[in-house]
Amino acid sequence: MSFEINQRDVLGRIGVFETKSGKLETPTLFPVVNPLAQEIPPRIMFERLGCKALITNAYLIGRRAGNAGVTDIHDFLDFPGIIATDSGAYQILRYGEVEVSPLEVIQYQESIQTDIGVILDVPTGSRASKTHAAETVRETIKRADQAQKAITRRDIAWVGPIQGGTFPDLVAHSAREMAKRGFDIYALGSPTEVMEQYLFTDLADMIFAAKTNLPSSTPFHLFGAGHPFMLAFAVALGCDLFDSAAYVLYARRDRYLTSAGTLHLAQMEYFPCRCNACAKTSPDEVRSRPIIERTQFLAEHNLSACLQEIETIKEAIVEGRLWELVEVRSRSHPSLLDGFRRIGKHQADMTRGAPSTKPKGIFYFDSTSLQRPEYVMYLDRLVRDYEPPKAAKTALLVPATRQGLEDRVSMHTGLANVDRSTHACLYDPPYGIVPSELEDTFPFRHTEIPREPDPETLKAMAEAVRMYLAKNRYYRSIIVVHSSKDWQTRFARMCGSICRGMGLRFLSYKVRKPSDIRIEILVNQKKHTDKTDKRKLIGRKL
Amino acid sequence: MSFEINQRDVLGRIGVFETKSGKLETPTLFPVVNPLAQEIPPRIMFERLGCKALITNAYLIGRRAGNAGVTDIHDFLDFPGIIATDSGAYQILRYGEVEVSPLEVIQYQESIQTDIGVILDVPTGSRASKTHAAETVRETIKRADQAQKAITRRDIAWVGPIQGGTFPDLVAHSAREMAKRGFDIYALGSPTEVMEQYLFTDLADMIFAAKTNLPSSTPFHLFGAGHPFMLAFAVALGCDLFDSAAYVLYARRDRYLTSAGTLHLAQMEYFPCRCNACAKTSPDEVRSRPIIERTQFLAEHNLSACLQEIETIKEAIVEGRLWELVEVRSRSHPSLLDGFRRIGKHQADMTRGAPSTKPKGIFYFDSTSLQRPEYVMYLDRLVRDYEPPKAAKTALLVPATRQGLEDRVSMHTGLANVDRSTHACLYDPPYGIVPSELEDTFPFRHTEIPREPDPETLKAMAEAVRMYLAKNRYYRSIIVVHSSKDWQTRFARMCGSICRGMGLRFLSYKVRKPSDIRIEILVNQKKHTDKTDKRKLIGRKL
Repeated sequence: MSFEINQRDVLGRIGVFETKSGKLETPTLFPVVNPLAQEIPPRIMFERLGCKALITNAYLIGRRAGNAGVTDIHDFLDFPGIIATDSGAYQILRYGEVEVSPLEVIQYQESIQTDIGVILDVPTGSRASKTHAAETVRETIKRADQAQKAITRRDIAWVGPIQGGTFPDLVAHSAREMAKRGFDIYALGSPTEVMEQYLFTDLADMIFAAKTNLPSSTPFHLFGAGHPFMLAFAVALGCDLFDSAAYVLYARRDRYLTSAGTLHLAQMEYFPCRCNACAKTSPDEVRSRPIIERTQFLAEHNLSACLQEIETIKEAIVEGRLWELVEVRSRSHPSLLDGFRRIGKHQADMTRGAPSTKPKGIFYFDSTSLQRPEYVMYLDRLVRDYEPPKAAKTALLVPATRQGLEDRVSMHTGLANVDRSTHACLYDPPYGIVPSELEDTFPFRHTEIPREPDPETLKAMAEAVRMYLAKNRYYRSIIVVHSSKDWQTRFARMCGSICRGMGLRFLSYKVRKPSDIRIEILVNQKKHTDKTDKRKLIGRKL
Repeated sequence: MSFEINQRDVLGRIGVFETKSGKLETPTLFPVVNPLAQEIPPRIMFERLGCKALITNAYLIGRRAGNAGVTDIHDFLDFPGIIATDSGAYQILRYGEVEVSPLEVIQYQESIQTDIGVILDVPTGSRASKTHAAETVRETIKRADQAQKAITRRDIAWVGPIQGGTFPDLVAHSAREMAKRGFDIYALGSPTEVMEQYLFTDLADMIFAAKTNLPSSTPFHLFGAGHPFMLAFAVALGCDLFDSAAYVLYARRDRYLTSAGTLHLAQMEYFPCRCNACAKTSPDEVRSRPIIERTQFLAEHNLSACLQEIETIKEAIVEGRLWELVEVRSRSHPSLLDGFRRIGKHQADMTRGAPSTKPKGIFYFDSTSLQRPEYVMYLDRLVRDYEPPKAAKTALLVPATRQGLEDRVSMHTGLANVDRSTHACLYDPPYGIVPSELEDTFPFRHTEIPREPDPETLKAMAEAVRMYLAKNRYYRSIIVVHSSKDWQTRFARMCGSICRGMGLRFLSYKVRKPSDIRIEILVNQKKHTDKTDKRKLIGRKL
């Protein structure tokens, strides 16, 4: 089954997965459709909402309609797109054992012409003990082996579910074992409850545990995820496929989904949406409708909100702005910010898979953005791979100016005259030190920053200077030029204390504004002392 | 002219402004309509886009069509809603002096039956020297006096423009002088360039300078603001009305507006929008259209995005979640985050106007949220107004549990047995100290927080403890109970150093989890020492 990845950002990707009913562009969300009764008819989903794929429950069809009843699920649901079927594992989770065997499930899905089938697994759930969780992993692997033998149709894409609940080591083991068995899609089982309880740090751990043990060239499905506010987060961690009944379950409880959270219809006065459902009406009018119509309205809006979020995510990947989108979404709820910050724990896995350059600049907000793969990779390259000029004895740190090319050229001219023992470097949040040779490289020149770095960013900048100096032992002295801007003064002070700790000479110069710096004169100053007579130097062209 | 404010959040409000052509709900955005040629016909704006008001240029109509040509602007534009007319001041800013007098401008606007008219002012612009800026303020005030004499129709709402550019003292002076002259609407002039350059800290300063010197019961208009990504920010600072040609100016340059920023049609592959314009097509298809149709498409989408954002803002006010919306939007661009953080400088003005309770809980993300009016007011009340029980000699700080009522009740039972000299208090980010009597009050019990406070929040918590202890001198000793959570340990340590600085006895107890605390036993411990034998106490039920 071919899966072609066309664009990447963070760990997210836009891909095309080939099924027997046509190409499926990912990331995508399969709405869960009850085979026996639907709030939105599948054809309306396809034609009006632009929904190209759905998922339904083979177990329910088999049980109610009987094996003889359905020969093609596409005809049965009147849906001309791609249809995935779930095995009934969710029913196990909810109601205990079901009455079908792993083999029957395969046979039945094959008989109804499903496009994407799921083997019968044993969901762990989020409240399982570790012993029970391990048991579900073992049992799912056993059933995977049975399923592999039972499968006769290779034109159907088969999904291998990963179990292990909230135990990352079990998830990792489960992923490794399923990967050996070669499925067309891998799916992380039972995160629904984790998401319902807003345990996004656990979710991040579970996704990383699974993804790092699976081939990255295979689509990865997150079972039961369908609230628009967390989709960008999940895509950024590498999830390609989602399925969810949230759009209709929430609708039945008069809930209105947005990419920033859930609203209660009962309290709403305005629809913050221009979709086909919302554009022509008001909350007041919808409240007055009979319950069935109200649920239909909300289901349509909710599904539309999910699909719109998928488009938003895809466009963000195209623009190289997926990280920025997750920054925004992580302010939808403190728990999602927790999950987003958890990325720090998985930095190595994160940067390994993420692209290192961008079509566009990056936005840096605060210390949360320190986890950005672009920044982590920059720092890594700087400390691990970069070699300063051999003659460099003095590192001259100058605040970067953003005032256009002219300034930078004049600064370069200055640098050309500089004694070879002086190595000109720049600093600008979040970058503590950027050798001038790297001045025009990504991501330094392409980072938009706030005027003031937050204290944690400033600390990270100083820490970068420390790591850089610890590795490059040529330097004997450090000069930090700073303006009267408070953060620059603090940065200079932090650099001073680092130098003292490392036995390096330290000098700081205060200037009114960065463009006052005349580097060729500055470095000709004879004496490098430990203390700066700031008053004397303020405002002078150095 | 009546303006009724119905709902408030932060400094934003939902109001109804009465005009002679009907009621106008605020906040609202007037699209700027060229009287002589429109990308979207005004009737389409009204009927399809749900746009109830627009603004057009009286100067251009007067100049091109001649005074005799137009007797009712509503008929001329074929727009059944509310029409505001601008005086031509924008043309002064762009092209220098115009050929009409302040009196003619009033007369002409009256003759065409405008609903909202603007007097002829002298825009300062953002690049003016202070001398020139002061001159524009003086001249605008002079013209305001001339205008007041010329006005014959009081059924028209007249707008008094505030000038002064980026000089807050001049803006404040201008606002005070205009306020004396009693206009129906006040408008902050010429922030367009400030916004084009993303100088949102300057914009915040300008808005505060104007708003704090104007009657809050009058609508406040921000001239030339119309990018959806900054509207929530401006509303949160107290702006009610906006006008903008951005939707069409951006459209002509193939730009696509979203509430998170601007996209270039040329690079887009997906529309992150489900509005009437976007739902049925794709960027590829739109690119293939002739330029006029393409511009029309983009103008319609852009205007729709602005109007949707206004609805989003209004719903956020209804939900008491406007601050949260601005948190989200401020991650659209680092410069907007700068502007958002600038609120800290205007804390007193901010909290004076904001409601102190909420229909819903509040979300706390990181130190940026420390500026929330609800938090600032809480801290203010605690330090200024709260009196601890007179007998209190020991403050016992216990981490709050969020594990439901049962725990809290058992804790209370514990407290009931406590010696009266021990005063039980709670802590939970961002609240450094919450006397148990206030445990169930807003906002403490209604704050959703991340699992881990950021370092700046932790600092603010300790600072709150310091301020509280400095005011309430009854306490002789402080006991901080903490779990093994890293942030709690650090908080306890910070409290310890505060106590040492103030000469108070300090004791910390480490417990495995907060529910291990048995306070009645804890306070019966005889010795309060400065150092804790942590190992001995870990895991024991105290």
